[in-house]
Amino acid sequence: MKKADVLFVSNKTKGRQFAKRLASRNPLLTCVLGTTETAKIPRISAAGKNPNLTDYTPPADAEILLLGRCRCIKQIPVTPEGIPTPALITRTALQLSNIPSLIVDAGSRIKPMVPFVNLNGNYGEDIRSGKACEDAPKIFQNAKMLGEQLSKLGGYLVIGESIPGGTSTALAVLLALGIDAIGKVSSSMSINPHRLKTEVAKTALKTAKIERGQLSEKPIEAVSKVGDPVLAAVAGLAVGATGNIPVMLAGGTQMGAVLSLIQRIKPNALENIAIGTTGWLIEDSTSDLVGIVRQIADVPILAANLDFSSSRSDGLRAYEKGIVKEGVGAGGAVIATMINGSITSEIVLKNVEEHYAKLIMGGNRL
Amino acid sequence: MKKADVLFVSNKTKGRQFAKRLASRNPLLTCVLGTTETAKIPRISAAGKNPNLTDYTPPADAEILLLGRCRCIKQIPVTPEGIPTPALITRTALQLSNIPSLIVDAGSRIKPMVPFVNLNGNYGEDIRSGKACEDAPKIFQNAKMLGEQLSKLGGYLVIGESIPGGTSTALAVLLALGIDAIGKVSSSMSINPHRLKTEVAKTALKTAKIERGQLSEKPIEAVSKVGDPVLAAVAGLAVGATGNIPVMLAGGTQMGAVLSLIQRIKPNALENIAIGTTGWLIEDSTSDLVGIVRQIADVPILAANLDFSSSRSDGLRAYEKGIVKEGVGAGGAVIATMINGSITSEIVLKNVEEHYAKLIMGGNRL
Repeated sequence: MKKADVLFVSNKTKGRQFAKRLASRNPLLTCVLGTTETAKIPRISAAGKNPNLTDYTPPADAEILLLGRCRCIKQIPVTPEGIPTPALITRTALQLSNIPSLIVDAGSRIKPMVPFVNLNGNYGEDIRSGKACEDAPKIFQNAKMLGEQLSKLGGYLVIGESIPGGTSTALAVLLALGIDAIGKVSSSMSINPHRLKTEVAKTALKTAKIERGQLSEKPIEAVSKVGDPVLAAVAGLAVGATGNIPVMLAGGTQMGAVLSLIQRIKPNALENIAIGTTGWLIEDSTSDLVGIVRQIADVPILAANLDFSSSRSDGLRAYEKGIVKEGVGAGGAVIATMINGSITSEIVLKNVEEHYAKLIMGGNRL
Repeated sequence: MKKADVLFVSNKTKGRQFAKRLASRNPLLTCVLGTTETAKIPRISAAGKNPNLTDYTPPADAEILLLGRCRCIKQIPVTPEGIPTPALITRTALQLSNIPSLIVDAGSRIKPMVPFVNLNGNYGEDIRSGKACEDAPKIFQNAKMLGEQLSKLGGYLVIGESIPGGTSTALAVLLALGIDAIGKVSSSMSINPHRLKTEVAKTALKTAKIERGQLSEKPIEAVSKVGDPVLAAVAGLAVGATGNIPVMLAGGTQMGAVLSLIQRIKPNALENIAIGTTGWLIEDSTSDLVGIVRQIADVPILAANLDFSSSRSDGLRAYEKGIVKEGVGAGGAVIATMINGSITSEIVLKNVEEHYAKLIMGGNRL
């Protein structure tokens, strides 16, 4: 028997119903970009070969989604270990099913050299300042307006993200909202630096003079003080779109933080929401997305059951070792391409391999 | 017998076929913004109470489309005579049929305070410099990429514009491409300043060292030298989208210039293109859209047959006197809302009146 391509992780009945709704609709993927000074704290993020390169990872990811290659940097983004960005997987899924995508800049230092929606947000500061993202209210409102417009297109929205250091800011927001998330957020590194992340998040709350749970009813204030631009934008997009259409939050534990924001801002939006991620993220023993989500709401979690263990590329086989695992909406995009049964996980792997080989051999040219 | 709400102006058979195709599809309106220093030449543009205010008209129009009111200025844009922006009509049409819209900034000095797609283009210079829009190649390519993505949504694209002084830059591009357009471009003023426009366009060609028709085979170069950011962006969007879906160029004689660009860049795109405008523009004795289009290609021209003569508002009745007439995709948006027969021109007028009255009485608040 062939293994399932899409896994239903929590509340399987609701998850299957959600998947059935999506199967008859057309997806639009929005990838939300942001950068923060938090990501430059040494050893906190692997989304870039070194801390200063993290500013280039989101625009480069956006360029990969639209062009198949980067413009703002010469090589595709890799972790310090040399493992390639999950944007490769997302791009492959988009191409396989001709899925449209729209880049949304929540707030980045470096802008992508492709068309993108501007939400008029500034990049995020170091959360240890307690003034992480003072544009959060504006970013949320603009994203909500965009989500409302996009929802009129019908179909459904897959919302991915690219923001280095995003799990640390997510942790701080989860704590400010009273969710027990210490030791539960994921990492793109092989060894999850939980101690460092917790220390950074706790310092952020301390500087902002917030007790854990103190901003439970003030979600946007939590983002302003200890969050990041992407959290505000993804929450806004989802709140704006769920009035008309289903929304898949495509990502890992960061989407847990988004879920907690939405649950505070507009609880009935949760009826139209699922989280879409990868099997690697679900199987990760160093993080606990299910444990975070369980504290917030009973929304379905779907996971793309990819198996890269037979890949010819070291960089892709590394995903099976729990490195990178998710990002740039990879899990959600793959779910969107597989959900009506025409594309299998084997086809996805074959095409990701071809794409990766071309990028490596062609010096980033496709 | 009730008069027709949509007029088929040229090649009626092709026009009716095009309308039939649109009727079974869902529209997405993109409004392309730009500003130029050309618009600040005294008496050339009426898209703003005075020349310096022309920089605020496109962002304010964008805000009206998404919010129903302006943010970047206190009052809605008016002509020096006090006649309100056609964005009112466009917004009303969008609301009546729940049509989604996406703001695209081709190159503006002032950015709208709502979400917009950034094409990384700079605002246009005074065309008399002969270096009107050096970003044209980049703007075109980025717009094309966006058009390709939007075309995957299915439906059809209505592309409107807001760029003060746009008919003068359009005239210069038409001349550079060898189209006889002198005395044929329209104006938002009651008296069309043809002599001034022709003088400006001829000076532009002279400074750029271009004979009339000399850039017939170099359309993007014509835009770079004597055009504007919006011409490059609308052409790019249309070329990108027409591979998959029908496109309505929503505007007046500026769309004639766009058509001439597309005809040079990708002639077979014309199969998927119509011009959508207003009856006021067609009836205008001081301009000749049909005469411009006839020199380029046999594409259908559709016109929204609006009658504001019974309006209670002086500002709206002025449209019947040939003031403003078109802009911000008004004609195309109204066609999109009337094309499947559910909304009549009477309903459009009634709703435009209500919208306008609320804006005037509510001090721009809705």
